[in-house]
Parts: sequence; C-alpha cells; structure tokens
Amino acid sequence: MLPSPDEKPFMKHSVIVPGFKFSGISSGIKKTKKKDLALIYSENTAAIAGIFTANKIKAAPVKLDITRIRRSGKARAVIINSGNANACTGRRGIKDAHDIAQITARELRSAPHLVYVASTGLIGRPLPLIKIKKAIPESVRKLSSRSIRHAASAIMTTDTFTKIDVKKILISGKTGTIAGIAKGAGMMCPHLATMLCFIVTDIAVERRALNAALREAAEKSFNSLTIDNDMSTNDTVLLLSNGFLKNKPITKNSFFYKKFENALAEVSYNLSKMIAMDAEGATKLVKVRVRRAKTTSDAEKASRAIASSLLVKTALYGENPNWGRIMAAIGYSGAHIQEDKIAIYINNFKVVNKGTGARKTPKHLFQKNEIVITADLGIGEKEADMLTCDLSEKYVKINAGYMT
Amino acid sequence: MLPSPDEKPFMKHSVIVPGFKFSGISSGIKKTKKKDLALIYSENTAAIAGIFTANKIKAAPVKLDITRIRRSGKARAVIINSGNANACTGRRGIKDAHDIAQITARELRSAPHLVYVASTGLIGRPLPLIKIKKAIPESVRKLSSRSIRHAASAIMTTDTFTKIDVKKILISGKTGTIAGIAKGAGMMCPHLATMLCFIVTDIAVERRALNAALREAAEKSFNSLTIDNDMSTNDTVLLLSNGFLKNKPITKNSFFYKKFENALAEVSYNLSKMIAMDAEGATKLVKVRVRRAKTTSDAEKASRAIASSLLVKTALYGENPNWGRIMAAIGYSGAHIQEDKIAIYINNFKVVNKGTGARKTPKHLFQKNEIVITADLGIGEKEADMLTCDLSEKYVKINAGYMT
Repeated sequence: MLPSPDEKPFMKHSVIVPGFKFSGISSGIKKTKKKDLALIYSENTAAIAGIFTANKIKAAPVKLDITRIRRSGKARAVIINSGNANACTGRRGIKDAHDIAQITARELRSAPHLVYVASTGLIGRPLPLIKIKKAIPESVRKLSSRSIRHAASAIMTTDTFTKIDVKKILISGKTGTIAGIAKGAGMMCPHLATMLCFIVTDIAVERRALNAALREAAEKSFNSLTIDNDMSTNDTVLLLSNGFLKNKPITKNSFFYKKFENALAEVSYNLSKMIAMDAEGATKLVKVRVRRAKTTSDAEKASRAIASSLLVKTALYGENPNWGRIMAAIGYSGAHIQEDKIAIYINNFKVVNKGTGARKTPKHLFQKNEIVITADLGIGEKEADMLTCDLSEKYVKINAGYMT
Repeated sequence: MLPSPDEKPFMKHSVIVPGFKFSGISSGIKKTKKKDLALIYSENTAAIAGIFTANKIKAAPVKLDITRIRRSGKARAVIINSGNANACTGRRGIKDAHDIAQITARELRSAPHLVYVASTGLIGRPLPLIKIKKAIPESVRKLSSRSIRHAASAIMTTDTFTKIDVKKILISGKTGTIAGIAKGAGMMCPHLATMLCFIVTDIAVERRALNAALREAAEKSFNSLTIDNDMSTNDTVLLLSNGFLKNKPITKNSFFYKKFENALAEVSYNLSKMIAMDAEGATKLVKVRVRRAKTTSDAEKASRAIASSLLVKTALYGENPNWGRIMAAIGYSGAHIQEDKIAIYINNFKVVNKGTGARKTPKHLFQKNEIVITADLGIGEKEADMLTCDLSEKYVKINAGYMT
C-alpha cells in the first residue's frame, strides 16, 4: 500500500469553506457500522455543475441529478450514501432517490428540487430506505462547517483513506476557497470503480462559467484517470458555488476565470492522484506520458493502452522493467506508429531506442512508489497523459470477495 | 487450476498425420532445460495458409512468414522456438529469423523460402542464435511421425499442459486427418498472450480454399478468444496441407469444402478452449453469449466488455454471482441497449429480468468449472459469443515475475 496522503503535507488544518456545512454518519447500510451517509449543505442557494458517467446504464440518483441540473442548475444540498449503488433497481430505485431528496429537503426546510443524491456500492439491491430515512434527521443535526472529513469518510467503499483537497486563491483581493472530497478505489484503469467527487467553493461563478471550468478541470484530471467507456453506473462529479465570497460573479470572460479554472483543475488533479494511489491493492502511482504522436487521438490511444495493460501493470507490481510489454501495448493500441521511431523512458532512463532495447535495463527502474513511463512515438507533436497504478494479488482478493 | 484436458477424452492415442513429422527438443534458450525448439516437417511441398497478429509491432518471424506466404503459399517446414519472442529486435531480429530458416532448410535439404519461423517468449532480447543453430541438426534428426506431442510441448511458455487436437473426416471414402497444436496462456481476454497454433492435414486443399477455410474457422474460434487489437507481437496460426490423402484437391466449390471447413473449425475451437482453460491462474472456463442485440457489432461489443471486465472475472473467481458487474459492463460496452429490456442468465438461471434483479440469486451459481453467461439484450436478433476465463491472484503472481 502506498503511504496515505494524510501523512503528506496535503492537508494540515481543518478545511472550512464559508457558507458550506458537512456531516457524515452511520445509517446502518454498511453492516460494519462504518459511516455511510454524507450530507453537504449550502447556507444559500448555490450554482451547481455536474459531470456524470457515460455508462448507458445509469444509477437512479445519476438520472435524478442530471434532470435537476438541466432544469435549474441550482442546489442547496447533496446527500450521498455508500454501501448500495441504487443501480439496476428499476422504478423503485428512482422513487427511492426522489424520496431521499424529499425527506432531506424537508429536514433542511429547502425545496426538494434543490437537493441532489449520489450513491455508491453494490449494484442491483434496493436501498434500505427505512434506515436511510431514519438517519436523515441526525445527518442534518450533525451539519458543521468543520466536518468535511466526516463527509469524506462516509462516501468511502473500499477506499483506505479519506480524500480531501483544498486550494485558496485571491479574487479581487479576497481569499476564496475551493475544497473537494472524493472516493474511488477499484482499479481505476482499465475498469470501472465508482468515482464520486464533490467540490464546493465560496467564490461566485456564473452558471455557464462554472460548467465550463468543471469540464476543463475534468479533462486534465478525472478523464485521464477513468476512461469514458469504462465508467461505472454511478460516477458523479458535482461542483457547487455559493458566492459567499461576495466577489463579482466570474464569467467566461472575467479576468479571474482562468485563475479559478486552474485552481479547480489543481484540486481535481490532486483528488485524482489520491484515487489512483488508493486503487485497490495498488503499490505504485504510475504516470504514463505519450509524446510526439501524430494526432492527439493517437497519443490518447497509446497512453490508454499502456496504462490499461494488465501485463504492464503486473510488471510494475513485480518491479520487473519489462519494456517489451509497453511496446506491445503501443502496437495494439490502434495509434499510428513507426516501430523504429519509438523511444521509451522509465523515469528518464531510456530503455528503448529506435524500437529496440537501448541498453541493458537496470532492474531497479520499477523499484519506486511513483513511476513515470514516457513513450516518445517520434512522428508528430501531440501528447497525452494518463494516471494509473499497478495490479497486485490484493486487487483480485478484494474484488473476488467484494459485492460491487 | 482446471483439470488438464489430458485427463479428458480429447486425446487418447498418438496422433499421426500422413506425410508430416515432428520433433521437440531443448536447445538451451530456456534456462530450465525444458523443450524450447519445435520442428514440423512435411515430406512433400505443402500448401500453407496463415493468420497473424493485428498488432502494428510484429515480431521478426511474423514479418518473415507474412512475406513467404504472400509470395509462394507453399511450405516444407515450420521451426518454432519458445523462451524468446524475437520481437522489437530490429534488423538483427529479421536476420536471425532468416538465418534460422536457412539453416533448417539446409539440414532438411529444402529450399529456404519454404521454411517458416515462429517465436514466443520474452520481447526485446536478441535470440541466442548460436544455441539454436547448434540444436537444429538434432531437431531434424529427431523428426518422427509420432512426435507431435513433443512439438506441442516445445512451444509452451507458461502453459501448464500440451494442447493437441485431432479430427478425422471421410473425403471420397478415404479418411483424412486434421491435427493441431497450440500454446496460449496469459490471460486471453482482455490482454495479450502470444497464441501460436499449427494445424496440419493430409487432405489436399487448393490454396484459396485453404485460406478461406482457415479464416472461417478462426472467426468461430481464435477470434472469439483473443481480440484483434489486443494481440501480442507474435500471434501466428499456420495451416499446412500436404495432400498425402491423394483426394481431388478441395476447392471453394467442392462438395467437401464445407465438411473440411467444419472439421477445421472444430479443431480450432477445441484448441481455443484448451487455451482458455489453461489461461494463467484460471480456475473456470467461461462462455459469454450475447443474444437479441440490435446489430452484430453491438453483440460483439457487449460480449467483449463482459468477457474482458476484471470485475466480472474476479467475481467469477470468487464464485460471487454479482450480476451488477455484468450489467455495468454491458452499459459501458458501447452497444446500443435499453436497460429495461435486458435479461441475464447464469447457466440458464435468470438473474436479471427487465434490467433489474429477477429474484434472489443463489450463491452456488458460479460454483462450477464451466460457466455460461447469457445476456439477452431483447431489442434485436443478432448474437455473439466469447470464450474467456476468470482472474485469480495466481495470474498476477505469474505475470509479476515472468518476463514476457
């Protein structure tokens, strides 16, 4: 297991975002009595943007949120349960998601259509609605501006550590905050694990700008981590902006738009990195970079193929710098290539030159917690990056037992 | 580990194909001193057809064979080494493959362009040519019509049992033989393992018919096992017909064409099945069937997604009949679907009806050596099948250590 980022200087103090409150409690969905119900609440009506799974089979809460964002783009609260995905649950699942939003709204004295719902866990079983209903008043009572960590903990499934990141930026002389929590686990590439991420900010951002910034940020983070087609039924990223900073709302043409977008991308990237680090059974964080591809699509194909190759992933785990498997992945990726133009670097050490072994590959190249694999296709100017992890026996053990 | 098909009634007697001789010896490429050099020899000039990897990075022997088949379509011998793939070895690799063919031809007193070469094993290291050169005379000396099993054993890498199949058919009152050997291992889906397969027959088949029959047979067997884009650098299927049966050569319009093609497909399918059974660490043989898809491409996408899903594979290994993972795979497969039309069966037991859980899923459903998963998409008439296996910790262990 990689060292938890809690031990890193990511997060030292408790995270406060003006106008937002959080709670995380146990409602009894998880038999272990671990926290399984998170609530995020904005003291006023926030603007909301969202990104959802591309899976054609979408969980009930995802369907609900998509409709609500499209209709109003406004939010007061997000209620999230772990332990049950409320996916493939038919009409009952839709009704359950609505009911949860309704009851939460009542307790918060908010309009029901301003409450969003997310779920993660086992697919195909009806939610234990009675337990959740009973627990909602407690989750409202426990709301506190200092409880983001409890919310982060309540959305976890097989995650081994809470994932929180925060970034402060100056907007017109005032310090705004962007804070996010996420859960991932599963092996991110090549296959599905539910990724949930909730980001809140007190910076006022106009709805369209909020949406654009989230999409930009995701492109540089979540989308280089999970791949569209491989998404779970429940993947959800929500971004809420409540404007407590009282700045002039940022639009796409504002001077501060780029600054906001960059800060949001940084928070998203850090959360993505934590997700990759905590992937089930992972022992290494791996960055795959493809350079000098003919087209961006070629670069993406090659980087995805390398990052998704089980043989590359097991070689990383076995600390076996087997570049042949990287070459083979590039070859079947579908990217345009010229074999004798390819160079491959492992942490800046050239292992392949002109398509063949550069020199004797030192055994220690994969003996690190963080590995960078760079494939230089040598026939163009386009590039793409992917974040991934290695594949260990533990991944199999976890997933042979766990009911997703 | 699945029971080896040696214990099944697949192969009881030694396999003889008139006019063909075989050998399998140790040349010292493998440090374990296991057999690593196989030779297949036809007493006269045979017609040859081949199918090769779609990987853009092709091993040197693959490049050589493609050229030779295109030029003459004739063969006297195939020499195969295991333990080294001769891939990503640049010009030297090409020269080495040529040299091996040349020396083998000299020893056999054949024309060099009638000798084909195949390799499997570690990518990126030059072949130990001196060892192979030294061993060729012995491999020629040991040629025998009864030694197909030795050849089958010499092409193995991480395979745990030899893969041989044979089928006899009546052609104009005479009994013709089709026999094949194969090696696979690796986890067949979703990723690369070198698949080598050599099929020989004494039935005379005209070159174009031979080629067509091989492609048809592969469609129903190897192609539903490995996926084009995921092929290794070395995948090779060669089919040799020497006409020793002295039948009127079969053409595409012959009465016997279909019979030949079916028998060839049967041998190919049986070898594919053995490859799936022997996939690294596999404990179950899994057939994925998609029915009532809108298009054949949809059916193929859905069956590949299910068969390639690590979460489905680990659930199979854990004997955890987690149909939610099957639904999720269908959802991200890219196939056109309607969630509420989908039904899923595990070994004829309906677990999903109209997109949601049909009834309580008995735990024992995955507690078998052979599992059939059927996904009925309910919106069309097209279908597709895939053969695959489960994913165990052993797969990771093998591939973390093995240098492919």
